[in-house]
Amino acid sequence: MALTLYTNMQSRGLVVDWLALDLGIELERKEIAYGAEMKSAEFLKLNPFGKVPVLVDDDVVIYELDAICAYLADKFFEKGLAPALNDPKRGLYYRWLFFGAGPLAAASDNQYLKVEVTPEQKMHVGYGDYEDVYNALIQGLEQASPCLCGEQFTVADISVGAMIMWQLKMDKLQPHPAIDRYVAALQQRESLQKHQASFVS
Amino acid sequence: MALTLYTNMQSRGLVVDWLALDLGIELERKEIAYGAEMKSAEFLKLNPFGKVPVLVDDDVVIYELDAICAYLADKFFEKGLAPALNDPKRGLYYRWLFFGAGPLAAASDNQYLKVEVTPEQKMHVGYGDYEDVYNALIQGLEQASPCLCGEQFTVADISVGAMIMWQLKMDKLQPHPAIDRYVAALQQRESLQKHQASFVS
Repeated sequence: MALTLYTNMQSRGLVVDWLALDLGIELERKEIAYGAEMKSAEFLKLNPFGKVPVLVDDDVVIYELDAICAYLADKFFEKGLAPALNDPKRGLYYRWLFFGAGPLAAASDNQYLKVEVTPEQKMHVGYGDYEDVYNALIQGLEQASPCLCGEQFTVADISVGAMIMWQLKMDKLQPHPAIDRYVAALQQRESLQKHQASFVS
Repeated sequence: MALTLYTNMQSRGLVVDWLALDLGIELERKEIAYGAEMKSAEFLKLNPFGKVPVLVDDDVVIYELDAICAYLADKFFEKGLAPALNDPKRGLYYRWLFFGAGPLAAASDNQYLKVEVTPEQKMHVGYGDYEDVYNALIQGLEQASPCLCGEQFTVADISVGAMIMWQLKMDKLQPHPAIDRYVAALQQRESLQKHQASFVS
């Protein structure tokens, strides 16, 4: 087995570290420095965005954090971090992963860029506007009991959960009882307690 | 089996129609009108974004187009539209799906919103800037032979392929030989020829 993780301790690669700890697997880590090394021609061949984390399995290069997470959950399916293929909960699982990678990330980036979507523009923008995304997050979390897909803790809890905890820590997410309750449930997970990740306040 | 698709003939639900045709499955379609019906309290309970498509399987509600696509590919896994769980190509498959739902969608939305990401802002923005996304698309397509995951046509070709064809049609994507070659390969797919979808020019 040759699973290599190109990462940096200051990056979202920490989420993959949490996942590896939860799965009980070892990845061969290669620390990539920000700046010249991450933007080198050699590294851009792996990931044209010049970002980490990047996972290489055999000769296949996987970037996009959620792609890495979803792939590892499937590869080690017996560890129980993803619903079965024909379980409708698998649809809910994907809904959360793509909500995190899509609307939640886009709205957060545009919050940073100080972009305001006007009511006229909304229907042409995938995520609508920031308020829509926040409302969808809260509506989803109000139905999460205790995890995003119900009783089963999945890699969606790791990916979306880490993003929520990080945004809370950075004061980028308005608090809400549904968020508090969900984060309290996450903190029961032994792997998170062991990880002491920097995205946890 | 109760698979219900809430959709509209003018929406990205057309991509799910293509997928259903390719899988050879029937979905119970419910046409939802833009405007009042799509923004009704009843429909917002299903999808707080007030958008289609939405797939309901049993009592599970799935929105986010790529979540619907990935779920149907898994549910009907025997149809061969997704790589096996432990095949590294499955990582590449997710990379494409999350690239489409993440950076490609975000960069396209911000192109519409006329947002320019400055060099200083780039490292704080998930997708970098539009040029990064376009370069990643081209670098990826140059390695696609003939489909995104190699010989196997997958649902990533349906989701990302439809987005590419639609952007070309709308003159939102700068042409490139790698794009032409990929679209020509897609057009070999019998289900696309039958679909005559409005996203195909």
